[in-house]
Amino acid sequence: MRATRFFISTLKEAPADAEIISHKLMMRAGMIKRLGSGIYNYMPMGLRIIRKVENIIREEMNRAGAIEMLMPVVQPAELWQETGRWDKMGPELMRVKDRHGRDFIIQPTSEEAITDVVRSEIRSYRQLPVNFYHIQTKFRDERRPRFGLMRGREFTMKDAYSFDRDVDGLKKSYQIMYDAYTSIFQRFGLQFRAVAADNGAIGGSGSHEFHVIAETGEDALVYCPTSDYAANMEAAEALALSDSRAAASAAMAKTATPGKEKCEDVAALLNLPLTATVKSIVLAVDADEGKEKQIWLLLLRGDHELNEVKVSKVAGLANFRFASESEIVEYFGCKPGYLGPVGTVKPVKVVADRTVANMADFVCGANEEGYHLTGVNWGRDLPEPVVADLRNVVAGDLSPDGKGVLAIQRGIEVGHVFQLGTRYSEDMKATFLDENGKPQLLQMGCYGIGVTRILGAAIEQNYDDKGIIWPTAIAPFEVVICPMGMDRSEAVRTETENLYQALLAAGVDVILDDRGERPGAMFADWELIGVPHRVVVGDRGLKEGKLEYVARRGGEAVHVPVAEMAAFIQARLAEQ
Amino acid sequence: MRATRFFISTLKEAPADAEIISHKLMMRAGMIKRLGSGIYNYMPMGLRIIRKVENIIREEMNRAGAIEMLMPVVQPAELWQETGRWDKMGPELMRVKDRHGRDFIIQPTSEEAITDVVRSEIRSYRQLPVNFYHIQTKFRDERRPRFGLMRGREFTMKDAYSFDRDVDGLKKSYQIMYDAYTSIFQRFGLQFRAVAADNGAIGGSGSHEFHVIAETGEDALVYCPTSDYAANMEAAEALALSDSRAAASAAMAKTATPGKEKCEDVAALLNLPLTATVKSIVLAVDADEGKEKQIWLLLLRGDHELNEVKVSKVAGLANFRFASESEIVEYFGCKPGYLGPVGTVKPVKVVADRTVANMADFVCGANEEGYHLTGVNWGRDLPEPVVADLRNVVAGDLSPDGKGVLAIQRGIEVGHVFQLGTRYSEDMKATFLDENGKPQLLQMGCYGIGVTRILGAAIEQNYDDKGIIWPTAIAPFEVVICPMGMDRSEAVRTETENLYQALLAAGVDVILDDRGERPGAMFADWELIGVPHRVVVGDRGLKEGKLEYVARRGGEAVHVPVAEMAAFIQARLAEQ
Repeated sequence: MRATRFFISTLKEAPADAEIISHKLMMRAGMIKRLGSGIYNYMPMGLRIIRKVENIIREEMNRAGAIEMLMPVVQPAELWQETGRWDKMGPELMRVKDRHGRDFIIQPTSEEAITDVVRSEIRSYRQLPVNFYHIQTKFRDERRPRFGLMRGREFTMKDAYSFDRDVDGLKKSYQIMYDAYTSIFQRFGLQFRAVAADNGAIGGSGSHEFHVIAETGEDALVYCPTSDYAANMEAAEALALSDSRAAASAAMAKTATPGKEKCEDVAALLNLPLTATVKSIVLAVDADEGKEKQIWLLLLRGDHELNEVKVSKVAGLANFRFASESEIVEYFGCKPGYLGPVGTVKPVKVVADRTVANMADFVCGANEEGYHLTGVNWGRDLPEPVVADLRNVVAGDLSPDGKGVLAIQRGIEVGHVFQLGTRYSEDMKATFLDENGKPQLLQMGCYGIGVTRILGAAIEQNYDDKGIIWPTAIAPFEVVICPMGMDRSEAVRTETENLYQALLAAGVDVILDDRGERPGAMFADWELIGVPHRVVVGDRGLKEGKLEYVARRGGEAVHVPVAEMAAFIQARLAEQ
Repeated sequence: MRATRFFISTLKEAPADAEIISHKLMMRAGMIKRLGSGIYNYMPMGLRIIRKVENIIREEMNRAGAIEMLMPVVQPAELWQETGRWDKMGPELMRVKDRHGRDFIIQPTSEEAITDVVRSEIRSYRQLPVNFYHIQTKFRDERRPRFGLMRGREFTMKDAYSFDRDVDGLKKSYQIMYDAYTSIFQRFGLQFRAVAADNGAIGGSGSHEFHVIAETGEDALVYCPTSDYAANMEAAEALALSDSRAAASAAMAKTATPGKEKCEDVAALLNLPLTATVKSIVLAVDADEGKEKQIWLLLLRGDHELNEVKVSKVAGLANFRFASESEIVEYFGCKPGYLGPVGTVKPVKVVADRTVANMADFVCGANEEGYHLTGVNWGRDLPEPVVADLRNVVAGDLSPDGKGVLAIQRGIEVGHVFQLGTRYSEDMKATFLDENGKPQLLQMGCYGIGVTRILGAAIEQNYDDKGIIWPTAIAPFEVVICPMGMDRSEAVRTETENLYQALLAAGVDVILDDRGERPGAMFADWELIGVPHRVVVGDRGLKEGKLEYVARRGGEAVHVPVAEMAAFIQARLAEQ
């Protein structure tokens, strides 16, 4: 590609509404252009990157035996009513009426559409397993679109859907997709991590997220550097921090702690470590079908944080909410800040985190304003609690697989694989006939990659103060040739053209910057855009028979004989 | 591709709602699957064809210097309000509100979006000309979607938009696109014709349609077999059928023609040729801004048909409608069937078609029920009329370029190129600075190809009673290998695999049918799907060292030595 036949448009400053680095750099590099809130034009420079991402995904999906098709953007509401998602999904589901007043949605995903295809196309176990995917425009009407492609409304997603005859088959299809995703992210040249995830509202029995590692990531990833264990914060199991409970060594005593509502302040006042304190969190479960309203007290060690996903899995707490202050006063006789499990006004259900359950001589609120209890011990001062994993893990916790301690890093979710089971096939009556001619529900899996989000995530991981540093596999161009004074020097023109043609002939994705820009502006553009390999052709170097090569990452100039540059570049590309 | 790794799903019968052959065959061949009214899933077999069509378009657009980008499906209403299309377009424009109640549209085309990009990106004449295109999902909420991909609601379109500094530049950009379209349709391997078209509501100064020739086409194409002249029926100019008017030779007389309301019946009764009669068409133009309502009488020769696009271009008739029966009685004193230009009750404006203006001694209604006038002559019996081209051409008419006579064939519109001029740049204030630093409006052109419609049109042109006959360039596969008894014969297995690998290595897009179907079912499938080249590997042929080749079009079997088949196929493909 010659730059004068392409469209290059860079900006010195990012627009004011660009908050994060990837959004700023994509806008400055002319890769995207805002059309509306959360809706972007993909400019020529951005589209090249998207196409490379899509092609890698397509190749690996095909290799894994998935079959590409294309489902529509606009889909009839009836299908979404069959599965109940028409009602369950909130305003992020974009709804539209046609000229006859019939309801449609603009697809955020395609579980319903593919299940509709499969329930009429798949009749026999002989046709299974099968896995269909498409790469298509999606829409989610985010309440507050921001961060460019990271939380836009219109985006491109690859979504695949596997169908199997039984759970064993589903697990195999799932593993094939998990492996394909691993290949895809490796080929992108990005640092990534797959973590076990909670299935959440989508239901089903197994799920992993694929994250691009980046300090700016929204999600905390938990992993064990000495084993395979990895999970997201919602799903990472927290073990008790001690194997067993020490014997009680102090008597329970009430201590004045006026104005000290936080564990940190109480510990400081009493000259105790924070790890000797217990914090109280009060939840309510509203009355339902004859059951009365319940108030629950959850206990965490003072330095720990509540994990709401884990809470929702405690028997009886699926529909919990945080209690109101008036409910707290009613049940504890005291306002928040001094609450504890000993001596509540009305009975509450107590659940202790695994670590709290093994504590002895701990400190908690006395259910009296300005007072805490010290030397509290299970069994002696209060009944043994229900025990559950309620907290977020922290770095240094033991790994649940017993093979080391946990570390935490930040990530950006770019892929997600789910075992859905019969969640959709049941509602939509998607069955096949087994060997005995009996109809059986299809076992379904779904597998998504946020194509456009990859761009933002890749940049959050790979940039410096000059701009983006693309991994070669998804760079808009692999190589840029920057001639110095092409208009003045016949030698520069000739060697530039020779190298350009040699690289094209070798199948290298090269752009020749023939715009006639000054060297400073030209280099700044390509450093901002992030092309990983640059060759400078100039009279000074040519006098010594050399061209200058600079890698975008690293940046040290290497002087290579003219005749060897094409081979040098190919060798660098082969290293990736 | 191995068939067992792909998804093949054929039907013996087309669904009842498939009215035309291309819709029936695409459904039967498992290329599309209905999701909703006018909304289709592109099944794997169909998507392969779409991708081939897209790739040819992309290559030729790039070669012509157009630059690919991607504009969103969902676009803010504000842009469409700027150009007035938000109000002007009817319910075929799909409108949607987001969660905040803001208006959006699902794009049917992208003139507004690209003009919004260009007005901020193009600042100087130095950046011109420029041509951006995208291949993207479109939506038109057709009142009555039908004919499969021919008149669907969601479809894929390639739309390109050129921007130039002046009309000369626009004409050049337009010609480049016209030539690129010619290359594209040639590469598809389809018979097509480019015809001059009326610009219609979109405005501007020049336009051509590209049609795939098919007897089942909705549009009549007019062309001159001995010259370059070609136009669609709306735009084809009809010359007068005689150079000058003959002298009057009969006196005007009133003749009883009871019950004969049609020219054909009057001519038969009077024993005159139909070409001696004149038919009357009454139009109304409603009162507007001080002007009173006008009634117009249009006169056509008895065997000719009215062309409403031409009528709307007659000065004063831009907003015509057909007159009601009560208006006709009020102005002519007579009901339709016996109307004419002589002796109306109230004054009407008379416009004669060019051919009628040169007629002498003609027959028309007498404005009295049951009577016609014969021997009517201009100037003597009634004033000289306003003359205009009002009729559709017919085969045998003189070509407007004077180089032969016109022929008519049917076509399906699949492409359209327009010179838009400043239609959008004016409303959206899209300007550039010229050499003198003065802002000037951009001259715009737009160029569309209906990607998914190509599939329907190609089939309407290429099918037989067995199914589809794809041109090789856009066939889902170029070659199918059909092994006979692969499970029983080691020789068949070996030679099948050898040929398959040889063709793959040669870059041939080949599918190996390893499903184990019976030969009859297997051949029927591939004839229905329309793969253009078939090789049969069977023990009978192998005994003589031969494989059987059959072209989908033609169908005579050719027996080719095993070792030569790969080369034979490549030679056949090179012929295309």
